[in-house]
Amino acid sequence: MDSLFHVIEAQQFSRDIMDEIFGVTREMENVVSRYGSNILNRRIMATLFYEPSTRTRLSFEAAMYRLGGEVITTESAREFSSAAKGETLEDTIRIVEGYADVIVLRHYESGSARRAAEVSRVPILNAGDGPGQHPTQALLDVYTIQKEIGRLDGIHVALVGDLANGRTARSLAYLLTKYEGVKLYFVAPEMVRMRDDIKAYLTEHGVAFEEEDDLMSVMSKVDVVYQTRIQRERFGDRIQDYERARGKYIIDVETMSTLSENAIVMHPLPRVDEIDPAVDTDPRAAYFRQAHNGVFIRMALLQMVLEA
Amino acid sequence: MDSLFHVIEAQQFSRDIMDEIFGVTREMENVVSRYGSNILNRRIMATLFYEPSTRTRLSFEAAMYRLGGEVITTESAREFSSAAKGETLEDTIRIVEGYADVIVLRHYESGSARRAAEVSRVPILNAGDGPGQHPTQALLDVYTIQKEIGRLDGIHVALVGDLANGRTARSLAYLLTKYEGVKLYFVAPEMVRMRDDIKAYLTEHGVAFEEEDDLMSVMSKVDVVYQTRIQRERFGDRIQDYERARGKYIIDVETMSTLSENAIVMHPLPRVDEIDPAVDTDPRAAYFRQAHNGVFIRMALLQMVLEA
Amino acid sequence: MDSLFHVIEAQQFSRDIMDEIFGVTREMENVVSRYGSNILNRRIMATLFYEPSTRTRLSFEAAMYRLGGEVITTESAREFSSAAKGETLEDTIRIVEGYADVIVLRHYESGSARRAAEVSRVPILNAGDGPGQHPTQALLDVYTIQKEIGRLDGIHVALVGDLANGRTARSLAYLLTKYEGVKLYFVAPEMVRMRDDIKAYLTEHGVAFEEEDDLMSVMSKVDVVYQTRIQRERFGDRIQDYERARGKYIIDVETMSTLSENAIVMHPLPRVDEIDPAVDTDPRAAYFRQAHNGVFIRMALLQMVLEA
Repeated sequence: MDSLFHVIEAQQFSRDIMDEIFGVTREMENVVSRYGSNILNRRIMATLFYEPSTRTRLSFEAAMYRLGGEVITTESAREFSSAAKGETLEDTIRIVEGYADVIVLRHYESGSARRAAEVSRVPILNAGDGPGQHPTQALLDVYTIQKEIGRLDGIHVALVGDLANGRTARSLAYLLTKYEGVKLYFVAPEMVRMRDDIKAYLTEHGVAFEEEDDLMSVMSKVDVVYQTRIQRERFGDRIQDYERARGKYIIDVETMSTLSENAIVMHPLPRVDEIDPAVDTDPRAAYFRQAHNGVFIRMALLQMVLEA
Repeated sequence: MDSLFHVIEAQQFSRDIMDEIFGVTREMENVVSRYGSNILNRRIMATLFYEPSTRTRLSFEAAMYRLGGEVITTESAREFSSAAKGETLEDTIRIVEGYADVIVLRHYESGSARRAAEVSRVPILNAGDGPGQHPTQALLDVYTIQKEIGRLDGIHVALVGDLANGRTARSLAYLLTKYEGVKLYFVAPEMVRMRDDIKAYLTEHGVAFEEEDDLMSVMSKVDVVYQTRIQRERFGDRIQDYERARGKYIIDVETMSTLSENAIVMHPLPRVDEIDPAVDTDPRAAYFRQAHNGVFIRMALLQMVLEA
Repeated sequence: MDSLFHVIEAQQFSRDIMDEIFGVTREMENVVSRYGSNILNRRIMATLFYEPSTRTRLSFEAAMYRLGGEVITTESAREFSSAAKGETLEDTIRIVEGYADVIVLRHYESGSARRAAEVSRVPILNAGDGPGQHPTQALLDVYTIQKEIGRLDGIHVALVGDLANGRTARSLAYLLTKYEGVKLYFVAPEMVRMRDDIKAYLTEHGVAFEEEDDLMSVMSKVDVVYQTRIQRERFGDRIQDYERARGKYIIDVETMSTLSENAIVMHPLPRVDEIDPAVDTDPRAAYFRQAHNGVFIRMALLQMVLEA
């Protein structure tokens, strides 16, 4: 098996490499329960963020610290004097690789992580590049299903909300094609339905899917409900369409009554009101545990790429 | 004695718990003179600041590093993509508690620290919530008096400047009611006099106080002069009132001539011109030592809440 | 030899102290290749930046972490609530010296580092004060020449680009007067020629220099070509002048053909288009190595001032 170096996009992961990552991630849960390790002592991670994403940044930084490493950070690399003076991303990467042993890059332009990886001598971890990829989020979603449900083969998952634009729902659908006997349900307001590219890909890989209107009836058929936020910014001036889309599929105590006992609700967060806070105390509400899994996944990736 | 967990407001401290905190704080002064300890090795503190307060943030962070811990930080949590997308403070806390072992919260809304504490599984340290509370500042003020004067019982303190709005002067008056034989002098321009709520509280707890106009005569009667800044923003359009209030009680070399040899001058800082820089070299000028005590107090609190 | 404490300006360095710094810097290259040391364990560096300079900040922070130390940091000290409330730089320094063992200061006003050093009990490292000094950049430039060419005496250097305003080119010319047999070539568009103050200083110290128009012919005579960026902001409304100045001296593959085999091209970075990226793969392109040397120089300075 090739060792892991750059982490750029969900498409780079085979089932085998995911198995390996998830194995290391499980070890990392033990490491955190012992308050960390020294394995990355004096290694330096740079978090180079061209747009703010404080949660993702803090999750990566916590991961690095739990392994004994250090962090240099900027969340305003776009106003970075050098970028403002016309420096290319490639030049910036070649400088920062002299400061750090691994670079976590967040950028507003799709394809930036790949450009960075092409010139970098240190591993690049893509922490989201515009509407493009956010592979560590995709991995933590699959890991959460594995951990909470105990398997990935044969899993039935409802993807709910904005499936047209939601990067996380699209990546999850993509990665689940690696497993056997998966069934997907798409529950989306009309204006933000799952796009044809993913549907074609699923068909090609023999993954069954159905589009559904009725969330209640789907809740009873699945192991996982993956709820997502309707993003206001996607609707421009069409406020009325936004309000209709947003109110259509709310998960509340009543909806939860139809979910089976061993199933879970996930959400990439932040949520607005698509999950009622009254659901939070339900043990099947897995979304905060899911967010915490991000630290373990990032610890695993950091250890793997820095040992490579 | 209950062990300390959340640190939310000055009102939570009894005389006993303050004694205990100050005992640990004294140990921390020794720890710093030995360049720190390893006691919080690989523990992570998150500084989650919804409004900037660089001094308070750096003081907490220095405290954590002196104990061997690590820090993840944001000073712009308000523009934090998640808060901007409508995420509640409670949801943010539930996510960050997955990244850190203790959360230092600065917020622009009174009551925020209490809300955070209600949902958090890790200790919340309030680093100021709007016009509300700033309990670590209150503790470091009392600690400074104890350390510089050698006692708190029987202490005579002049509170000078903006006593109506000054959070620190109000908290100090409140905490001094825990001690015996305290006498307070309030020296404030007319428009920013000490409010009735604190005066009623002092009367109820048998603490003597007087309102005075003449700073010079008060200087000769006290152990501590606690000077504060007149805050321009409190005066709105009334520039003339502001200028009059601001110029009224200046501490300069001449004023210092009436202060007794063992007394001290304190100030929560920043100062503008209410203390003449010519006073800085006077050994009774304790305000920079007071600021430095903040690191020791915060070290003590971090150790106490993380060992709880 | 006096031990090093504050690092304020290029003028403070004798040839002897530079020799000593460069000796320690060479050791630091070994330290980094072993992933750092513990020598500054639990020491705290504050990076107090009144204007953003993410690259310089990250370079200092990487240096501190490589030596086992910790960092507290702000890149927006100007909007720092205290500065905004009227606090002087001197007061801020007296507070921050209570949090940190060394302060790295970046400021927008010339002379700020000297003012800070006058009140600080901990070492001040000047990371650039306005149009004034940036001594660590000056040191890393000289170190790079020493390391790449193997000597400083008898070196021939072409300074190219904006020599009127470029702080780095001016400092380099100044520091090279410490060595024997140096020859400088100034190649600048007419509106940004080297100023008379430096030329007078060179004459006084017996350093030979020539002003040249033809970059190609100079390339064949030198050991080092030090290219700099034409700064648009220096030209105000005179866009046409800017465009003419900017396009005049480009280093590309053709220009490189006249450079001798053992010579190098340096640049303080960021570059815009004054060096064609096609040159990057040429082994004589030393500018990224030069940027990386900054970490080693800063490690050496940190160790020297903290051991003082």
